[in-house]
Amino acid sequence: MPLTDPGAPSAFDAATAVTRAEGGELAALLDPGWDVGGGVLNGGYLLAVAARAAVLESPHAHPVALSASYLHAAAAGPATLTVTPARAGRTLAHSTVVLADAAGPALTVQATTATLTADEPAFSSPMPAATPVEDCFSIAENAHLAPSSVVVPGLTQRVDTRLDPLTAGWALGQSAEEPMMRAWLRFADEREPDPLALVTFADALPPTSWALGRFGWAPTVQLQVLVRAVPAPGWCLVEARASEIAGGWIDEDYRIWDSTGRLVAQSRQLARAPR
Amino acid sequence: MPLTDPGAPSAFDAATAVTRAEGGELAALLDPGWDVGGGVLNGGYLLAVAARAAVLESPHAHPVALSASYLHAAAAGPATLTVTPARAGRTLAHSTVVLADAAGPALTVQATTATLTADEPAFSSPMPAATPVEDCFSIAENAHLAPSSVVVPGLTQRVDTRLDPLTAGWALGQSAEEPMMRAWLRFADEREPDPLALVTFADALPPTSWALGRFGWAPTVQLQVLVRAVPAPGWCLVEARASEIAGGWIDEDYRIWDSTGRLVAQSRQLARAPR
Repeated sequence: MPLTDPGAPSAFDAATAVTRAEGGELAALLDPGWDVGGGVLNGGYLLAVAARAAVLESPHAHPVALSASYLHAAAAGPATLTVTPARAGRTLAHSTVVLADAAGPALTVQATTATLTADEPAFSSPMPAATPVEDCFSIAENAHLAPSSVVVPGLTQRVDTRLDPLTAGWALGQSAEEPMMRAWLRFADEREPDPLALVTFADALPPTSWALGRFGWAPTVQLQVLVRAVPAPGWCLVEARASEIAGGWIDEDYRIWDSTGRLVAQSRQLARAPR
Repeated sequence: MPLTDPGAPSAFDAATAVTRAEGGELAALLDPGWDVGGGVLNGGYLLAVAARAAVLESPHAHPVALSASYLHAAAAGPATLTVTPARAGRTLAHSTVVLADAAGPALTVQATTATLTADEPAFSSPMPAATPVEDCFSIAENAHLAPSSVVVPGLTQRVDTRLDPLTAGWALGQSAEEPMMRAWLRFADEREPDPLALVTFADALPPTSWALGRFGWAPTVQLQVLVRAVPAPGWCLVEARASEIAGGWIDEDYRIWDSTGRLVAQSRQLARAPR
């Protein structure tokens, strides 16, 4: 049952709202509650705000490809969004979005918008086997079990994150051989997923290096998210993997399936990894 | 043995050269020989030109993350490159690069440059088993076997492309169940690979939908390339997969290993797919 008044906007919609000022400028109020610890806002949350601005200035309804460079950690509070439209056609439109806080541009984004249809896929990667959500491990509810270096951030209060226990050994002091995590996600207030939600889910898990017992922080340098379909209501399954951890860098590769088992999003990021 | 005068620049270096005019503007001469059929220049070739411009304007030596929106098919001939530096630090620098031809901006790129080191990876995905290069299938040498709808483009004259016969059934009229191809790549003039070469290799194979016998064209919409290490001399192994083909869209996901078996690059693109 939703925890909030059904007439009120969901926490996600309120926190990612983009408004137009009288002069036409777009603005947002970045919500400190979507942090990943230490007051740093989640990169997927920030990208969803930029995606909302891109859609507002587009003839198309959905973000389908977003690539963002993270210039500095955006501060909570007022932010401006500058959308520069590029080529637009019948099937898709390109633009550049800059999200700036008082310190200047924090995020620059290449955005492609389109209108996703409900076509049957000619090919689609099947959802991997995963432990049923009711037998999974809630990060928010198990904070007391985590290593002391692991902060349970605001993000996991807003995105209900249920780790597959087969990939949650790190939280219990048992490190794995592969940097991989699998989790069921939905918003804590049960707002249903949509393409904007997938943009946030595409960067919502802890760094997969934690699976190896390497608990350092991994700030995002560049993140690409592809949205492939409008997700069905219910829990989404996220699988995150790193392909290489070397020289102070890590990649994070996500695939996201909806409750019907359809692949609905993919993301890849390059992040800094502690040496 | 190299086919060209060892004192002359390689075909790749000549075709991706970026020069600075007296006023400081950067320019390139796009080479019609790097086409993918029908006079359309390869997206990885164009991105390597943009990456060269990003490195020229950076304190760092290597492109490590590039995300490009493809606005229109850039014409062969003169092009300008506009690099706008963003935040730069000790370990990395961000910039935006716009490659424009006479018709205007063709490619807008978020670029991150850094200096790659030779650190031993803490984790690295092993190279998959592949047929030895001498037993592989040269696309350029087997043009007569391909379906008549398949054009052998200039790109495969310059990038020697040896398809693993296990993933080359499509060229012989046998379609596969999975959209996947594996191939060994190196430049035809034996110029050794480097980070810029990897940017081109990251978009050098035919669309993986061809493996399913779907031979339509798949123009790139947005492409992200991550360069993870400076590759060793010799052949690189490229594995390309699509995760979903639906609603007129396809993704292409590449991983590239060097001759020592080290993962050196990854890419993902969203492209249009014929319905």
